[in-house]
Amino acid sequence: MSRWNNDYNHGAHPAVLEAFIKTNQESYGGYGLDEWCERAAEKIKTHLGSTDADIHFMVGGTQVNYTVIAAALRPYQGVISADSGHIHVHETGAVEHTGHKIHVVKGENGKLSAASVEAEAENYRTSGVKEHITQPKMVYISFPTEYGTLYSKKELEEISAVCRKYGLYLMIDGARMGYGLGAKVNDLKLSDLAALADVFYIGGTKCGAMMGEAVVITNNELKDNFRSYMKQNGGMLAKGWTLGLQFYTLFENDLYFEITGRADKYAMEIREAFEKKGIDFYIDSPTNQQFVLLSEEQMRKLEKKHIFEYQFPEGDRHCVRFCTSWSTKPEDVEELKADILAL
Amino acid sequence: MSRWNNDYNHGAHPAVLEAFIKTNQESYGGYGLDEWCERAAEKIKTHLGSTDADIHFMVGGTQVNYTVIAAALRPYQGVISADSGHIHVHETGAVEHTGHKIHVVKGENGKLSAASVEAEAENYRTSGVKEHITQPKMVYISFPTEYGTLYSKKELEEISAVCRKYGLYLMIDGARMGYGLGAKVNDLKLSDLAALADVFYIGGTKCGAMMGEAVVITNNELKDNFRSYMKQNGGMLAKGWTLGLQFYTLFENDLYFEITGRADKYAMEIREAFEKKGIDFYIDSPTNQQFVLLSEEQMRKLEKKHIFEYQFPEGDRHCVRFCTSWSTKPEDVEELKADILAL
Amino acid sequence: MSRWNNDYNHGAHPAVLEAFIKTNQESYGGYGLDEWCERAAEKIKTHLGSTDADIHFMVGGTQVNYTVIAAALRPYQGVISADSGHIHVHETGAVEHTGHKIHVVKGENGKLSAASVEAEAENYRTSGVKEHITQPKMVYISFPTEYGTLYSKKELEEISAVCRKYGLYLMIDGARMGYGLGAKVNDLKLSDLAALADVFYIGGTKCGAMMGEAVVITNNELKDNFRSYMKQNGGMLAKGWTLGLQFYTLFENDLYFEITGRADKYAMEIREAFEKKGIDFYIDSPTNQQFVLLSEEQMRKLEKKHIFEYQFPEGDRHCVRFCTSWSTKPEDVEELKADILAL
Amino acid sequence: MSRWNNDYNHGAHPAVLEAFIKTNQESYGGYGLDEWCERAAEKIKTHLGSTDADIHFMVGGTQVNYTVIAAALRPYQGVISADSGHIHVHETGAVEHTGHKIHVVKGENGKLSAASVEAEAENYRTSGVKEHITQPKMVYISFPTEYGTLYSKKELEEISAVCRKYGLYLMIDGARMGYGLGAKVNDLKLSDLAALADVFYIGGTKCGAMMGEAVVITNNELKDNFRSYMKQNGGMLAKGWTLGLQFYTLFENDLYFEITGRADKYAMEIREAFEKKGIDFYIDSPTNQQFVLLSEEQMRKLEKKHIFEYQFPEGDRHCVRFCTSWSTKPEDVEELKADILAL
Repeated sequence: MSRWNNDYNHGAHPAVLEAFIKTNQESYGGYGLDEWCERAAEKIKTHLGSTDADIHFMVGGTQVNYTVIAAALRPYQGVISADSGHIHVHETGAVEHTGHKIHVVKGENGKLSAASVEAEAENYRTSGVKEHITQPKMVYISFPTEYGTLYSKKELEEISAVCRKYGLYLMIDGARMGYGLGAKVNDLKLSDLAALADVFYIGGTKCGAMMGEAVVITNNELKDNFRSYMKQNGGMLAKGWTLGLQFYTLFENDLYFEITGRADKYAMEIREAFEKKGIDFYIDSPTNQQFVLLSEEQMRKLEKKHIFEYQFPEGDRHCVRFCTSWSTKPEDVEELKADILAL
Repeated sequence: MSRWNNDYNHGAHPAVLEAFIKTNQESYGGYGLDEWCERAAEKIKTHLGSTDADIHFMVGGTQVNYTVIAAALRPYQGVISADSGHIHVHETGAVEHTGHKIHVVKGENGKLSAASVEAEAENYRTSGVKEHITQPKMVYISFPTEYGTLYSKKELEEISAVCRKYGLYLMIDGARMGYGLGAKVNDLKLSDLAALADVFYIGGTKCGAMMGEAVVITNNELKDNFRSYMKQNGGMLAKGWTLGLQFYTLFENDLYFEITGRADKYAMEIREAFEKKGIDFYIDSPTNQQFVLLSEEQMRKLEKKHIFEYQFPEGDRHCVRFCTSWSTKPEDVEELKADILAL
Repeated sequence: MSRWNNDYNHGAHPAVLEAFIKTNQESYGGYGLDEWCERAAEKIKTHLGSTDADIHFMVGGTQVNYTVIAAALRPYQGVISADSGHIHVHETGAVEHTGHKIHVVKGENGKLSAASVEAEAENYRTSGVKEHITQPKMVYISFPTEYGTLYSKKELEEISAVCRKYGLYLMIDGARMGYGLGAKVNDLKLSDLAALADVFYIGGTKCGAMMGEAVVITNNELKDNFRSYMKQNGGMLAKGWTLGLQFYTLFENDLYFEITGRADKYAMEIREAFEKKGIDFYIDSPTNQQFVLLSEEQMRKLEKKHIFEYQFPEGDRHCVRFCTSWSTKPEDVEELKADILAL
Repeated sequence: MSRWNNDYNHGAHPAVLEAFIKTNQESYGGYGLDEWCERAAEKIKTHLGSTDADIHFMVGGTQVNYTVIAAALRPYQGVISADSGHIHVHETGAVEHTGHKIHVVKGENGKLSAASVEAEAENYRTSGVKEHITQPKMVYISFPTEYGTLYSKKELEEISAVCRKYGLYLMIDGARMGYGLGAKVNDLKLSDLAALADVFYIGGTKCGAMMGEAVVITNNELKDNFRSYMKQNGGMLAKGWTLGLQFYTLFENDLYFEITGRADKYAMEIREAFEKKGIDFYIDSPTNQQFVLLSEEQMRKLEKKHIFEYQFPEGDRHCVRFCTSWSTKPEDVEELKADILAL
């Protein structure tokens, strides 16, 4: 059985384990104040086109999302998210738990549009009863989205422009950042994100690390005492250097981009196989997550040899998810393709 | 100019003021532990068909809503509300501020249906990732709704049955309770609400009192230490007897029902006037709030002599709200009707 | 039986009731946007020596305290309070409920000293692990304190100077403000408080109003969107003008100062009676609250005709509280004095 | 230079790294639903004397502390802690951030006594104004304490008895659990903790793991939906098996006890060296943390070759901390001892 159910079912890229082994005899300062965090931050900054960002390493995505949002917002302010946004649907209300409303906007293909953001902002701006409603002050988007889709550079520029016009912070959830950057159709780079967003994170957990996310804060207003928020929200790892070390390893020779780009390529091959069989997709994704519509029979056949994730029934078919990842092996891809073509 | 913009623009029913004057030389115990709160609770209980409820007097509706909700829910639980629910749209995110997600459901005429509640509950019950999502544990409805519409006894019984099936608490926001109970088409009584809901409140602020809401808790699970929640949430009035006294006065000779029923009657007369002129309604309301669709010209004419509340543009017309209340004077109703008919 | 147990056991000063009656036929804008709130604010400003303050009317003290504190602090910041501070001991953890730590400092006679505040601030300033501890950012004091004691102008200037040196906000809980200002030994005026504090409130509930507190914000940083915080925290009264009207009435001809000053005078007479009998005080209070140490026998005798508040046993004596207030009648004072002298 | 500054400055015990390497080709279920978490829980249960506990693996101690506390308490309830308790002094107000007050009690040698806990509980039980104060509902202690001291079995039994008498939950912070259990004077076992406490955790981060804490919940009331709290509080690791795997490895052949017991032994040797030189201790600790009072000259000499942690000045001496840990090497101990004796 090979696992395609998600992109976090394997430990860590061998280079990461190697780094653990090499440094295990050394001792380091605690809580992220160490040379590996510094070096990793330096490496990441070479991709940002600026040395002005603050970079912090945290353990997981939910933790990053609510910590960043709670640090950025005042109690009467909220965050705009697509209805498929991870903070809205899969984080056990963590954002509301910090006291903040999510302004839920119907997304298209998992994405917000500049127009929908502007509509929310205008709604507040023109309200005659501002003190009775929450103020949207941040926009949360995912790159890639929860459906694997991508914002184009143009789309992100438009959203960013609306954010600046209305004084909204733009936050990008990059849990799968590598798979977004590595997609063939993608025209965004980390330096674009740094220029267009106020804060984003580069996912490690799903992109080669054992655990860890690199939070990049470019807006000075959001930098203030961020480490206090990390500690208060349980997101400051005692042995913080283990996070820095992983990101250093992944960014040392662009390993991060290599392994996620390869996963995207595999995903496209699998997608092609489905297309050849005339099998439809729930959504058109250019990244490592593929949402496929299978008949009952097709699903039963494939699940004999492959583990994938059930999503929901869609008419008389079933929407299921196939994920590739940095750990996907070429022979498994070949086998899956063959099994698809044999459906 | 006569004010129809809302139902809280006058002080208090003369009988309430009279009660203040009569008792002003007396001294009382603080924080709601006094004879007037007791006597008011007894009066209210005669309408509940049970002496088993806990009754607390608080100052305002937003305060009641978030205090009751926060007292009832554990941190990972949320409350289901219609998209027009007051807690969702007009309380500055107070519920989220207490840490809880609102499960927003598209309402019909401002109402939830049993089916829509069941769908939310089923969604959680059947979820394979329960720990990643919030658990809907309470249902919040308003009677009358924010649009002035009413649940029928049958509808409320159905919703209550779903709540009991899934272990959800049913909470009824009764900020305008009197206007609901007094409507001609209404077939619910306070005793029905006591039997079908777990907690509800009887609005005073909009129904004859200077301020105050009577919270009725019928479910024992929700009674525990409620006064601690009141104090912690700023909802325990030092001179609590002034609230009890008002409710005692309003319920002494069914004054509450008399003055709100009369307001409903006036609203129906005004409604009839609009109907006679062929003027449409945004929604079909049998209570003291009437949402009318006026042309620009009609609006301009009426606003010369009448203050009403602008809602939003609706095509080339304008949705505006006319409210009657316990303080509405018959001569003002006559004048408004005449002005409508003269449009 | 006459009640000396607290200063909130009577309704409202007759002039306040009179104002309710006079305006009861009028209609007003809601939520504190009305002419009475404006006029009351103007009246109060004449005492501040500045027209630059923001003034808001809220219903009760606990509500004011946690709303102001939560509005002022970021999540990692806390508030310094004496161990006898009301927010620490009698508000059901409302401040912590908003997410903030109270930095508790041992008080002297219920008061903080500039030195103790500076020690807390220095502790943070010199900490090498700032992100592991909360930042004290506000100082909360009560005037008069919970024990009836007062800060002198010199003491307040010193505390204010430390606050400014370390960037701490100074907040003054003035639930009994009138009794502080009216004390014979007091050398502070509202204009001093306005100059030395960043935010304070003028208590109405205990000083002649039926309910209500006037929040005075002098620091621009704390003014931003305060009405949103009020609404979110259940502190925005629908019929806000009833609060403004009360404060207007109390400040119109300095009635506020007259009635609280008189209560202080009565308290001093009662105190003198105790002194004459050689009865000790738990604390030396120049205001309307007197904390007296009675023997069992003395207590039993007095409680036959007088209601006062038991505090705690103190050796073989009992500490009890006698309060005068705006509603205290001279004949009751005479009777109490006689009963004390007859002990 | 050898590091004695803390017990979390090295990566992981070699056996843990070995386990990472061995399993790195495997794929596992996410979020702690995997065979390693199961097997680790089974291993731990063999020490508990009961199979009835719920065991969850989380990443760090602060996260565990506030998540457990917030899951156990209702909003008006608080937790009792010694004034040296980690939750009070070093977690950036994380507990208050979840809305709960810490009832701070002066500790003795970093410990609470049964009497001091009972005094807090009695204070609430006998209060006449319960709704104005927070209810202590949980007791938080650390084993070993932040000063390295230990509760004896008798002391813990007494505290547990008081907790049961008053319905308080007993929580034990076991960040350094191994060093407590391994101390020569210790007479407590994990099975005692399981019997006497309602919830505790077994520290991994400081005791051989790269990261991770094992939360053991024995009280059924605290088990309910704990995974929802974990997720909401950012404490559910995507690759949860990496935590289970570490604990399995550490508990497989009692490695955990071996490596922490050895660290305690080294600490006692170092302590003896200080004693031989007549150097005093700030506190008498039988575990891996030693708080030593050095003269300026002694401190300067030792810091040439050793890294230790400065605590605070104590008269004309300096309190500093020396920690041993699972990673301490015998040759470093010998060298330190020699350097101490050469002072």
